[in-house]
Amino acid sequence: MKGNCIIAQSGGPTAAINASLCGVYKEMSGNPDVGTIYGGINGIQGVLEGKLLDLGPILSRDNNLRILSQTPSASLGSCRFKMGSPEDKPAEYQKVFDVFQKHNIRYFFYIGGNDSMDTVRRLNEYALARGYEISCMGVPKTVDNDLVITDHTPGFGSCAKYLITAVMESAQDNSVYDMESVFIIEAMGRDAGWIALSAAAARDRDGAPQCDLIYTPETVFDPDKYIADVEAARKLKKFIVIVVSEGIRNDQGVYLSDTGEVDSFGHKRLSGAGTVVAELTRDRLGLKVRNTELSILQRCAAHIASATDINESAELGRLAARGALDGLSGKMPFIRRLSDSPYKIEYDYANVSDIANAVKRVPDDYLNAARNHGSAKAISYTLPLIAGEREMIMENNLPVFLNLAAIYARGR
Amino acid sequence: MKGNCIIAQSGGPTAAINASLCGVYKEMSGNPDVGTIYGGINGIQGVLEGKLLDLGPILSRDNNLRILSQTPSASLGSCRFKMGSPEDKPAEYQKVFDVFQKHNIRYFFYIGGNDSMDTVRRLNEYALARGYEISCMGVPKTVDNDLVITDHTPGFGSCAKYLITAVMESAQDNSVYDMESVFIIEAMGRDAGWIALSAAAARDRDGAPQCDLIYTPETVFDPDKYIADVEAARKLKKFIVIVVSEGIRNDQGVYLSDTGEVDSFGHKRLSGAGTVVAELTRDRLGLKVRNTELSILQRCAAHIASATDINESAELGRLAARGALDGLSGKMPFIRRLSDSPYKIEYDYANVSDIANAVKRVPDDYLNAARNHGSAKAISYTLPLIAGEREMIMENNLPVFLNLAAIYARGR
Repeated sequence: MKGNCIIAQSGGPTAAINASLCGVYKEMSGNPDVGTIYGGINGIQGVLEGKLLDLGPILSRDNNLRILSQTPSASLGSCRFKMGSPEDKPAEYQKVFDVFQKHNIRYFFYIGGNDSMDTVRRLNEYALARGYEISCMGVPKTVDNDLVITDHTPGFGSCAKYLITAVMESAQDNSVYDMESVFIIEAMGRDAGWIALSAAAARDRDGAPQCDLIYTPETVFDPDKYIADVEAARKLKKFIVIVVSEGIRNDQGVYLSDTGEVDSFGHKRLSGAGTVVAELTRDRLGLKVRNTELSILQRCAAHIASATDINESAELGRLAARGALDGLSGKMPFIRRLSDSPYKIEYDYANVSDIANAVKRVPDDYLNAARNHGSAKAISYTLPLIAGEREMIMENNLPVFLNLAAIYARGR
Repeated sequence: MKGNCIIAQSGGPTAAINASLCGVYKEMSGNPDVGTIYGGINGIQGVLEGKLLDLGPILSRDNNLRILSQTPSASLGSCRFKMGSPEDKPAEYQKVFDVFQKHNIRYFFYIGGNDSMDTVRRLNEYALARGYEISCMGVPKTVDNDLVITDHTPGFGSCAKYLITAVMESAQDNSVYDMESVFIIEAMGRDAGWIALSAAAARDRDGAPQCDLIYTPETVFDPDKYIADVEAARKLKKFIVIVVSEGIRNDQGVYLSDTGEVDSFGHKRLSGAGTVVAELTRDRLGLKVRNTELSILQRCAAHIASATDINESAELGRLAARGALDGLSGKMPFIRRLSDSPYKIEYDYANVSDIANAVKRVPDDYLNAARNHGSAKAISYTLPLIAGEREMIMENNLPVFLNLAAIYARGR
């Protein structure tokens, strides 16, 4: 199929989403049937406003492709815009396909999570129904690691590596004074506790856990049980490190830190589960407690990205492009794990309709019996995903980044 | 002088304080006049309880010296204990010198900040007055960078590198949606704004600042001026990154986040200046605001330590030992900067009495005219201090650390 191409990024950014963008770009730019490769600025929301950036002139020069790959966050900008159904929002579809037609777009790649896969599904179905010839492909991405079917998602490994390192380092710091102390780290994860649970892999050389307690959204947070857990931990250790997911809930299903606000997806806006738990610990046990919310730092920590994560992200992008060039549409490449040690995976394609809107929660056997830590299985799952360091291009000892959305904004 | 040696660590930990410990140890262990080299556990507080660990058997084997050097936080443990005067607390001095005598200690090294240098001063004076032959030496350390006389202090460069990287990465993340947004980072710094100010060095390839506003304790925090600053920044940029020191104060001299608690030094315990500023921004401007308090992560971030900082820290440790072996006492080696670019320094010795209890605040010419950012001078000052990466010994893709205080606790 001869024609042009749009690649866009959606949802919460990661340290690996630009590696996927590079993967798509490289595969598409090497094909003689592919004309102009556009970046869609700010996801589908920008695409329907016609905000397109010709990537070729930028990415073909200097080290820009490599610099793009090491840039954290979505270089093209992102959106939290979710397309309605064609029946409810016909004008949206009209706009998108007007843009597609005007620019002779025959390939559309959307790098994102489950909401984004729903958009890919809808666009693909709409195009099929109207006879508009286009390949619409999804590329997985989310630090939350909560996409179904795929073993894990790009961005998660780097986020986990950041958290595990933070746990290992802060466990040293938290033990520095000769007094009991508790350090609480709040990690992302609204519906699934994958990120928090990755902290189970933080171990010293003797295999001792560096994080003592982990609480995820998969288990109701019971303050009394929590206090009993800390009391039990105190009997064995003077210095306690705790990781909590932002999305932990009480027995009423209410987030510990429900702010009452909602975002444009209807998701509740959260902050401060760690702060709530810290106050609880201080109030009930009178201990010295510090806490930190890693906030966006955990998802944009390019400096400690996992090479495994970056390489897989690029490969998933490449495979999406390869699939599109081979005539696939409405598909998303994914990872199937064959073994933990040695780490072996294979790639395959799933229907985006099977990915869209579903959430993969942490299975029970990834939690310990007390549901306040990870099992051996969780650790074996996590460790290969954080493997390997990446060489960064630096200038003046600072990392060098490429922000395509900013280039687009300046060019207007 | 033939005899044994104690090395101890004090105050808030850093990513470089163990490099200084290694520097002292290596120089001392290479000298035939030096017998046993003890680590004092939990600073002078542990020393006066006789908590000593023979370092030789541990540090002479395997890669332990290198692993110690890459371990964040004070491996020997630390304390916030400040010795009173010999007149007020004669029993304390009796205890310390009983330990010294019992173990034939002729060299005492204390790695710490201005409170610790006061302890070195007191011990040195006491020993001189009593005719107890010992060399008491200080080794500088503090992420706060607020020691007088020395150009900068070990630990600061690594902390600054962590913050600058966090600013560079989060500036990418914060710009990802097509809507105005503010990200606020709270950095350490109770009395001096050096850490926060280092964020001025975060620049993109075109030299554009990645951090838009910086507030330090050197300037009264005026909420109205702050809001005007943000309003002015919004006219130029959609995405704003702000760094605030934990120690910013209002025009009454009250910390923005005064909790009313004090620590054992009489220092006010602080938390959440960034949260207060975030709420102010949300309330007054209705903007989307996220914030993070880096907490202890910034001072224990071994994974992104500055090689310059680590090397200088080791060298200052070595020089303290060298000075002691050459007969100095009551001294602290320090760094004098000769030029920023190329970065040139020389080492010298100061009297600990000139360092003790004084605080070096950020000079006016390191701030811009509006006092809400760093000057070119501040950037030239900071950049060489973050230079260079260090190779880490890893196992299973996790960093390997050595916790001497834990080894001591297990051995009891």
